Amino acid sequence: MTEVYVIGASQSDYGAFPEESYRSLFTTAYEGAVDAVDGDFDESLIEEAYVGTLGVGGRQLGLSGPAVTEHVGLHGVSCTRVENACAASGTALRQATLAVKSGVVDVALAGGFEVMTDMSGEQTRYWLGVSGETEWERMAGTTFAGVYAQMADAHMAEHGTTREQLSRVAVKNHANGAKNPHAHLGFECSLEDAMAGTPVADPLNLYDCCPTSDGASVAIVANEEVARELTESPVRVAGTGQASARVGLFQRPTLTGVPASRKAAEQAYEQAGIGPDDVDFAEVHDCFSIAELMAYEDLGFCAPGEAGSYIERGATEPDGERPVNLSGGLKSKGHPIGATGTGQTVEVFKQLRGEAGGRQVDGLETGLSHNVGGSGGAAVVTVYEGGWA
Amino acid sequence: MTEVYVIGASQSDYGAFPEESYRSLFTTAYEGAVDAVDGDFDESLIEEAYVGTLGVGGRQLGLSGPAVTEHVGLHGVSCTRVENACAASGTALRQATLAVKSGVVDVALAGGFEVMTDMSGEQTRYWLGVSGETEWERMAGTTFAGVYAQMADAHMAEHGTTREQLSRVAVKNHANGAKNPHAHLGFECSLEDAMAGTPVADPLNLYDCCPTSDGASVAIVANEEVARELTESPVRVAGTGQASARVGLFQRPTLTGVPASRKAAEQAYEQAGIGPDDVDFAEVHDCFSIAELMAYEDLGFCAPGEAGSYIERGATEPDGERPVNLSGGLKSKGHPIGATGTGQTVEVFKQLRGEAGGRQVDGLETGLSHNVGGSGGAAVVTVYEGGWA
Repeated sequence: MTEVYVIGASQSDYGAFPEESYRSLFTTAYEGAVDAVDGDFDESLIEEAYVGTLGVGGRQLGLSGPAVTEHVGLHGVSCTRVENACAASGTALRQATLAVKSGVVDVALAGGFEVMTDMSGEQTRYWLGVSGETEWERMAGTTFAGVYAQMADAHMAEHGTTREQLSRVAVKNHANGAKNPHAHLGFECSLEDAMAGTPVADPLNLYDCCPTSDGASVAIVANEEVARELTESPVRVAGTGQASARVGLFQRPTLTGVPASRKAAEQAYEQAGIGPDDVDFAEVHDCFSIAELMAYEDLGFCAPGEAGSYIERGATEPDGERPVNLSGGLKSKGHPIGATGTGQTVEVFKQLRGEAGGRQVDGLETGLSHNVGGSGGAAVVTVYEGGWA
Repeated sequence: MTEVYVIGASQSDYGAFPEESYRSLFTTAYEGAVDAVDGDFDESLIEEAYVGTLGVGGRQLGLSGPAVTEHVGLHGVSCTRVENACAASGTALRQATLAVKSGVVDVALAGGFEVMTDMSGEQTRYWLGVSGETEWERMAGTTFAGVYAQMADAHMAEHGTTREQLSRVAVKNHANGAKNPHAHLGFECSLEDAMAGTPVADPLNLYDCCPTSDGASVAIVANEEVARELTESPVRVAGTGQASARVGLFQRPTLTGVPASRKAAEQAYEQAGIGPDDVDFAEVHDCFSIAELMAYEDLGFCAPGEAGSYIERGATEPDGERPVNLSGGLKSKGHPIGATGTGQTVEVFKQLRGEAGGRQVDGLETGLSHNVGGSGGAAVVTVYEGGWA
């Protein structure tokens, strides 16, 4: 099977940018990804593009893929918009990987964008809500914070997870994001502040919730022949997994985990020929603090129910046994929905190549990204390894 | 490179069905596709699914892929919603083909759906409009009929195409659709009626425009190993091409053709190792009469500018040299946006297997489907051949 490499990846700043558009943000990410390719990259090699966006705001709701690829000059390229709610560009990366593996194209682009901060609270709730299960959750008034609050509540009841353990996710990710110049909320927060945040949906408070952000990200993947011509710091897509599950949380067999994450991880590990113990670091989908704790368990980093103690003993800190969300994660770096998946790829790419600046952790060889759609109706897990196959 | 076969394909009726939902329509199409597989098909073989929809009406706008695959019992399957406006499920078929060619999965599903008839005229205009170029076309009040009217006007001025030649598209496709039990507008129309239709956007009248429809369609594709176990009437995906172009018509180099169709066709022909002369029959994207005439030229069935005389001499009639839209096309069979692409696959599949009932044309060996998004911002062309590779 053809091996696939990330040869360039970059993101725009994440934040609130009234002076930017979805096109200008995507252009920044695209140009950064092209610049990140080591060699002299001929952009016309890009034959296939996958663009993830939920289409928040309804700006260019149809043909939103071609609308951005034309803007960066990729005229005529085969371009597909993919959507899996917040897992849109994780899905884009998987599809770009499959396209290159198919042998039909040598180089493919995966990326995503979202502009979310120019709307009223009402509008934001609508556009976030459309990824929830419509008939029984959204129409009943349930928000994403509400759905994840149910999971947090169940995790606390079932496994004894504590308020402090949830807040440690925020403290860690803000500390990491404070070192990331692209972060939306690039400030540190104390454990006291995180525990005393304004209530949002009990037991979740403001510090348990990621922001809504504007931003874009792009990754360029290529087969080994092209990659060998262009890079001496290869980052290989060693495994890719994707799964779905019931869109409505109320229809799933568990409240304390995300079955789609588990299934996607199994596939990715199997394809990469590794297990969770081999993962040196990960970017996981921490839309809410509880989501990061569940990810530890679903990805096999710790045993079911033990995520609270796992973060408490510092395992996922930058100097811990397996750093998680070195970028700041969705919590601090931000969550421009369609951009989030390939934005995770950007961090893994940089860490594996030793290009993560002030937040670089040395000696990392195997990374993972984990991107979840909705409350778990979809999940994509990707395993990356530094070096040639 | 792995060969890919369509092993089952089916569609719901197209029409206005107030008693149906997007889920029930998709279920009908899915169950029909499973039933269409010759052998005893184990549905758990489906590992990857691509669902095309524009999301008209905003029902389950996010995660609309998993929302239908869960409903048919494909729990946990990797499912991606793809969107390329009216080319959504043509895109789905291409992605399913690439997924099987990648070797990562053996069997994949491609399908699509749309429910469009339960809205007011205002709402319908909004939801169709979102696939147009937003800032300079939609916001200026241009509709799709208006955009295609500009193309028709230019084609008439540049190539002498006549009112009668446009109307012959409607007459032919309605005659074909009258033999299709799934057709939305399954009645015949006379040339006189078609020429005297109520004006919509000059020079296009009502008979030049396809309806908006409810409907769903599904195709199941597999690698050769699986296909050989399950079928003795193989339909091979011999070539697949996809391209984009400027989303706004006003930014393209020509008004009298669709550059994305030409590029997608070139790719599909090259991959199949054939030329346009080898195509025995085709399902083309006749959202408006002029679109079918331009397709003849863009796909190489006749020389540029000669589509009018090509239809006039009966070349694309069922008994002509190259039948086009034997199903009735978008004009008569209907156009439930997300369903249209794989709906075309259904007709090609049936004709190549001799299963098209009263509209069967004998001796067909090579078919083509042509699916366009918006006014040509995206296009997908697929070449199919009966028999093993």
